[in-house]
Amino acid sequence: MAEITLLSIAERLEGFEETIVFKLIDRAQYKTNPPVYKQGKSGFKNAGDASLFELRLHNQELMDARFGRFCAPEERAFTGRLPKPHRGVTIGDTGLRCKNLKAINFTAEILAAYKDLLPRICVHGIDKGNFGSSVENDVYALQAISRRVHYGALYVAECKFRDNPEKYRGLIKAKNVDEMLALLTRKEVEDAIIARVREKVAYAQARVNRRVRTVLDPDCIVRFYREHVIPLTKKGEIAYLLNRNL
Amino acid sequence: MAEITLLSIAERLEGFEETIVFKLIDRAQYKTNPPVYKQGKSGFKNAGDASLFELRLHNQELMDARFGRFCAPEERAFTGRLPKPHRGVTIGDTGLRCKNLKAINFTAEILAAYKDLLPRICVHGIDKGNFGSSVENDVYALQAISRRVHYGALYVAECKFRDNPEKYRGLIKAKNVDEMLALLTRKEVEDAIIARVREKVAYAQARVNRRVRTVLDPDCIVRFYREHVIPLTKKGEIAYLLNRNL
Repeated sequence: MAEITLLSIAERLEGFEETIVFKLIDRAQYKTNPPVYKQGKSGFKNAGDASLFELRLHNQELMDARFGRFCAPEERAFTGRLPKPHRGVTIGDTGLRCKNLKAINFTAEILAAYKDLLPRICVHGIDKGNFGSSVENDVYALQAISRRVHYGALYVAECKFRDNPEKYRGLIKAKNVDEMLALLTRKEVEDAIIARVREKVAYAQARVNRRVRTVLDPDCIVRFYREHVIPLTKKGEIAYLLNRNL
Repeated sequence: MAEITLLSIAERLEGFEETIVFKLIDRAQYKTNPPVYKQGKSGFKNAGDASLFELRLHNQELMDARFGRFCAPEERAFTGRLPKPHRGVTIGDTGLRCKNLKAINFTAEILAAYKDLLPRICVHGIDKGNFGSSVENDVYALQAISRRVHYGALYVAECKFRDNPEKYRGLIKAKNVDEMLALLTRKEVEDAIIARVREKVAYAQARVNRRVRTVLDPDCIVRFYREHVIPLTKKGEIAYLLNRNL
């Protein structure tokens, strides 16, 4: 059985925070750019109804799929019809015990939450000539958030199950989601995450020149974690447990 | 004539610093992973002699070219045989006055300097199952560094020319590189950049958990700026001036 402990997983999740914060700061250097999300306005020939954002996301995932990204259990594609990897990728025993891992997929919720966040972190308006950079940074931010949510969902749930298998087995068999959620939730851990993320956003921008850089409000990111990242992770933990091998 | 001033350009360059620092920190979360740079070891079928890193860089640039990245005067591709954009990209008058802009290309020097930097910022060794993420982060870091160097080269040179056109015209006609370099160099500006970069590297990692994150040594990044980013930018300024319309 692979060596996974709640401490090692929690620390890995903590390590993802910098990456998410950096990617959101990078995206916020571009304006909201509403046209890039408009259907049929990609500017590409023969791209049908797709938006520029959707095209970029799909093209990134086409490339990533060929390189093997989605072989990792915590990676999820936002778009469909992706090729198999063009290279061999070896994933050892991850310690996860769930047949239907890829069914645990919160990309739609993450995308909706992210689009809702954008007008709160970006200056409203249009960057002429920078639509490409804008959607490029959308994709990187979304991938970082998705990795955090799905990694947390799968591995935290597995660790908690192992710590208390009999209790969880009973709740899973009874499909008792409310009690599972109560058992999974540790308010003090959530508060520590929130406090840490707030500080990281502030420190990452401590030496910024505000005349050229848009500064992310730590409150926005804290709210995004509290309203989306943490609840989606817990929803994913429940989904994992309901699908876990008993 | 487009509105470009030395102050606005210097501030733009300052704004790129966070992005470079963030990308290097992200790359440093993976080990050196020497096999990804080995020719013929990409694991891809029919990829010939390419390394995994080269394949990733080329595939990223194929996608970026289709999206129009290289229409921006400061963007340079590291690899060749790229398609034309698949969408219309409008770049207004940039204010640059140089026919042969794309000939000013320091990607080879940037790549060599970057590969030399890696063993100083990454833990030595191999991340099983993370070769894809490792080269992905290489590409993002290289693109951020390249944008900084080429943007600085072109726009700083143009601003300095405009501030003192008669003097520069004489030096350009005489191909007097040494005196041009002396005239371009402002030691106090370089020292300010170095001091600022050092602080940014430190602050961006102020709240890091060192058990899970590899911490970038500010000295390494300062040295990279002093030995490569700044000198290559100045080399690019000279190249721009020698090619400028007189």
